[in-house]
Amino acid sequence: MAGQEIEDLVKYLARLPGLGPRSARRAVLQLMRRRETLLDPLSDALQVAREAIKTCTTCGTIDTSDPCTICADPRRDDTVICVVEDVGDLWALERAQALGGRYHVLGGCLSALDGVGPEDLNMSGLRNRCAAPGVKEIILATNATVEGQTTAHFIMDMLEDMQLSVTRLAHGVPVGGELDYLDDGTLIAAMKSRR
Amino acid sequence: MAGQEIEDLVKYLARLPGLGPRSARRAVLQLMRRRETLLDPLSDALQVAREAIKTCTTCGTIDTSDPCTICADPRRDDTVICVVEDVGDLWALERAQALGGRYHVLGGCLSALDGVGPEDLNMSGLRNRCAAPGVKEIILATNATVEGQTTAHFIMDMLEDMQLSVTRLAHGVPVGGELDYLDDGTLIAAMKSRR
Repeated sequence: MAGQEIEDLVKYLARLPGLGPRSARRAVLQLMRRRETLLDPLSDALQVAREAIKTCTTCGTIDTSDPCTICADPRRDDTVICVVEDVGDLWALERAQALGGRYHVLGGCLSALDGVGPEDLNMSGLRNRCAAPGVKEIILATNATVEGQTTAHFIMDMLEDMQLSVTRLAHGVPVGGELDYLDDGTLIAAMKSRR
Repeated sequence: MAGQEIEDLVKYLARLPGLGPRSARRAVLQLMRRRETLLDPLSDALQVAREAIKTCTTCGTIDTSDPCTICADPRRDDTVICVVEDVGDLWALERAQALGGRYHVLGGCLSALDGVGPEDLNMSGLRNRCAAPGVKEIILATNATVEGQTTAHFIMDMLEDMQLSVTRLAHGVPVGGELDYLDDGTLIAAMKSRR
């Protein structure tokens, strides 16, 4: 087809989530067609990311500084720590500007099926942070899946002996959502938590 | 959300066809999670591609050498030139091993709507190559769209005064295709060209 270098590029692009071999080939063609506006900046951005991006040793998110922007921000509320499964969840909450406190990224959720135990997640770091003076509330913002809820329960047990208020995200009707399309579990939860 | 470097990476990845802002974010997370197996090789591959990949001055395809692998291959049939719109079409024909001859990439198709005229495509190069001694057949493998067919007609007119056999790809039922799902145009074409 074409040189090994092009094949390699297709191969690695195809490993990105959302791209397969066919769309990776289209992406390579696009990259070649738009060298100045796409190939060069993307290549530079990857190069920079490779050198600059690190994992925050405090909360576990990825950023270009350690401690990360959020952990280093003095305006944020030190008394609240929001526990999320993944960096993507943290980004989602930050986009929504849903929290003024700190975060803690577990790096996944407990899963017996996939063999993920507490020792594979950033649990000891969480315990240490919760033990710090001044921390008052832990918000468990794990996903509303079976694994996410199991993880939340595990953390609640782990923190039971500490004088902390442990809260969870509310279940309910999504804003803008239509009742007709919602599952029974969500509707029951929304009805129970009615205000 | 996170450092400017991460935002930049998301922005450029989101410009690839098939990726939007949301999937670009997922791709960045995946890149960060799998640094050794994904981020580093992809970054290297892009770097190499950026330096090595050029456009073949003969046929217009992209490759790491100029003339490209196909133009430089002495085993290929010099008497046949297959005209395609884009490099992707050339790759598709090469994957199918459908041709033992040479290619010519136009770089698009004539389109009054998008303001693409013959001078915007690699037409003069095609005329020069067709005028070379030894060339016997030109296969017009432009897409079966209105623009592709217009382009094919234009090339047929352009080459009319030359002693060449100009052929087009056959229309018909795709191999493995079911008649029930085919459009009328294809069925009529398949019936007309029955053998």
